[in-house]
Amino acid sequence: MQLQKIFVNGERLKNTIEAFADYGRTDKNGVTRLSLTEEDLKVRDYFRACCEELGMSVKMDDMGTMYATLAGETSGPPIVIGSHMDTVKKGGRFDGVLGVIAGLEVVRTLVDYGIKPNFPVTIMNFTNEEGARFEPSMMASGVLSGKFDKSVMLNKKDPAGITFGEALEKSGYKGEMSNRITEATAYLELHIEQGPVLEKEELTIGLVDCVVGMACYEIEVTGESDHAGTTPMAMRKDALFAATDLIIELRSKLGALDSELVYTMGRMNVLPNIHTVIPNKVIFTIEARHKEMEIVREVEAIINGLPEQLLDCEVSKTKLWGRDTVWFDQNVCDLVEQAAQTLGYSSRKIASGAGHDAQFVASFLPSAMVFVPSVKGKSHCEEELTSYEDCEKGVNVVLETVMLLLSR
Amino acid sequence: MQLQKIFVNGERLKNTIEAFADYGRTDKNGVTRLSLTEEDLKVRDYFRACCEELGMSVKMDDMGTMYATLAGETSGPPIVIGSHMDTVKKGGRFDGVLGVIAGLEVVRTLVDYGIKPNFPVTIMNFTNEEGARFEPSMMASGVLSGKFDKSVMLNKKDPAGITFGEALEKSGYKGEMSNRITEATAYLELHIEQGPVLEKEELTIGLVDCVVGMACYEIEVTGESDHAGTTPMAMRKDALFAATDLIIELRSKLGALDSELVYTMGRMNVLPNIHTVIPNKVIFTIEARHKEMEIVREVEAIINGLPEQLLDCEVSKTKLWGRDTVWFDQNVCDLVEQAAQTLGYSSRKIASGAGHDAQFVASFLPSAMVFVPSVKGKSHCEEELTSYEDCEKGVNVVLETVMLLLSR
Repeated sequence: MQLQKIFVNGERLKNTIEAFADYGRTDKNGVTRLSLTEEDLKVRDYFRACCEELGMSVKMDDMGTMYATLAGETSGPPIVIGSHMDTVKKGGRFDGVLGVIAGLEVVRTLVDYGIKPNFPVTIMNFTNEEGARFEPSMMASGVLSGKFDKSVMLNKKDPAGITFGEALEKSGYKGEMSNRITEATAYLELHIEQGPVLEKEELTIGLVDCVVGMACYEIEVTGESDHAGTTPMAMRKDALFAATDLIIELRSKLGALDSELVYTMGRMNVLPNIHTVIPNKVIFTIEARHKEMEIVREVEAIINGLPEQLLDCEVSKTKLWGRDTVWFDQNVCDLVEQAAQTLGYSSRKIASGAGHDAQFVASFLPSAMVFVPSVKGKSHCEEELTSYEDCEKGVNVVLETVMLLLSR
Repeated sequence: MQLQKIFVNGERLKNTIEAFADYGRTDKNGVTRLSLTEEDLKVRDYFRACCEELGMSVKMDDMGTMYATLAGETSGPPIVIGSHMDTVKKGGRFDGVLGVIAGLEVVRTLVDYGIKPNFPVTIMNFTNEEGARFEPSMMASGVLSGKFDKSVMLNKKDPAGITFGEALEKSGYKGEMSNRITEATAYLELHIEQGPVLEKEELTIGLVDCVVGMACYEIEVTGESDHAGTTPMAMRKDALFAATDLIIELRSKLGALDSELVYTMGRMNVLPNIHTVIPNKVIFTIEARHKEMEIVREVEAIINGLPEQLLDCEVSKTKLWGRDTVWFDQNVCDLVEQAAQTLGYSSRKIASGAGHDAQFVASFLPSAMVFVPSVKGKSHCEEELTSYEDCEKGVNVVLETVMLLLSR
């Protein structure tokens, strides 16, 4: 079908973003909306009402993931626009929910223009993407794609001891396993970048071709605690000295690998952590991410090649987890790129350093993601910000991609 | 007076050490006897009974410090043997109490041999040396020497909110300010080394000539927290990277200063301490000790010379505290050395890296300390150990020093 050039309603989009942010809005204009809490259930009710007002039908699968569908001329594989509405504690107004709102604004625009698509258009809201209340993150998309075992996930507990299964049962949002999505024309996820690249390069649209592979290790250094005042330097087994040597070695070797590699020692605990006592243990994490798995494997070789003994301390390395790079569907990526170009928005290919539901969905549905800039690269915090203008352009790219899919 | 060569009773000393350890003995053969707790009050009662049995008179000063005095032929300045009986939580059987028991065993030996000294011999038990219940450590000797303000100390609270003043009032061990010691022929403190030097060098007696000076700083590094997966390395302000560079610089420069310098980064906290988030803050302590204050001052110059900016992070340095080296009385030190030589015990001059009541007492009484070996250098733990044989030799050195003082 040949379709007219249409655009989303920027003013309405802005109001919708703020209306959704009212569910769990914090004093500092962030959002706390942990999965299946009262705030999350209320925003789900609101989202459902918005969809039903548009004549969409709403159903849930057995993990509580919502599917709001605008019927098409045919019942063929739907075009899916999805993301999540849960947030971390004191998160922002954009992470996740923007992708769901994008779907809503796309359908509203289609309805505005009286366009009945030839396939159904489905908006998905994945349950518990953040993993902030029930670990792990991307729980529902993980179960949907067969990466996670459902019964294990149902037994995951929040800090208050409530299981995910109990919270889901009580929520009223538990649906049927038969409602799980199994096919789609395409899956599109609009998300904030959560990094500084687009802003730094003054670009509007990130054409996400992959979610990068990663490896995360825990390094444990064991020395011996002695009195800081009475133990000569030569008789010490200082776990912090050994740990700093290891970190310097890691920084030096990883720094020489590839300019796109990122690596972080984010967690580090020193024991007994008393200023007058020589540390007998230091435990720190090292995680590294790169889209080329050969480089991730080189990182792992460097970590595993760290000495087992250093400065009379023992060094052990444990792999906490890893994931392979997920490449998005080339055809869908090409359409997203074409959409951005048609709209005249500046763009670049970009790898997602963070995990998203799309990376699991990509294993069984042709998928792609679109990024819009994060001011100062911030996310998962109350300062998280993407300008309304950039949000609008991002949603326009999703709408244009939908139109391209419909016109094929 | 010319006196016969006498020795302490090793078997009795051993039994006394174990009898005292019964007050607060832990499952793992350590001792928990925090200042002015029930265990501490019971061991004080026991100590008083032991002293009174020997015909000594026992009195307390206004900080609860005990003075048990064996009358001499004259009422001249007493020979004082002192230390403390309180311990840290899960401390050992030797730290502190050995110095008090040494006094008891010396007096018992004098009584055994029917020796009435020409000066009084006083055993002191200082209140709250460890500071484990009420900070700071060496509280009573600090007040006695005028280093600490008494009214401030009386208001110090334990973790349960009880003030030192309240605990002292309730203990029954609060005495008169007029009982404070003001003069002495000598003050002698026998203590475990709390370090590995004597054991490593296979020596029995440490002739302590000083308590080393020290400086303790807190270094705060402030960067910026960003997502570990989405922030390119060149756009980071990683506080842990900057902190490790600072630690390497400190280790390198301090390591080149002097082989007797000790320096420790004992406490280090990384924030927000999440493996997927770049650290935005690292706070660590650096403390260094050396008997030559010029070297301590060089350490301070190195710390203050650290860059104020590093890897786009801010670096600030705060001096937490410091102390000057306390040199013990040359005459008393010489007598201790002579005593060890007379007895044929192996010995060396040693600096005390840890703080002791003697360092405050030394400001107004001619003082010296004697160390005996700590197995593996351990103290402030249940494994703390000094062989009975070494304890006996240490007490014999104190006894011999007393005899030398009496024979002058």
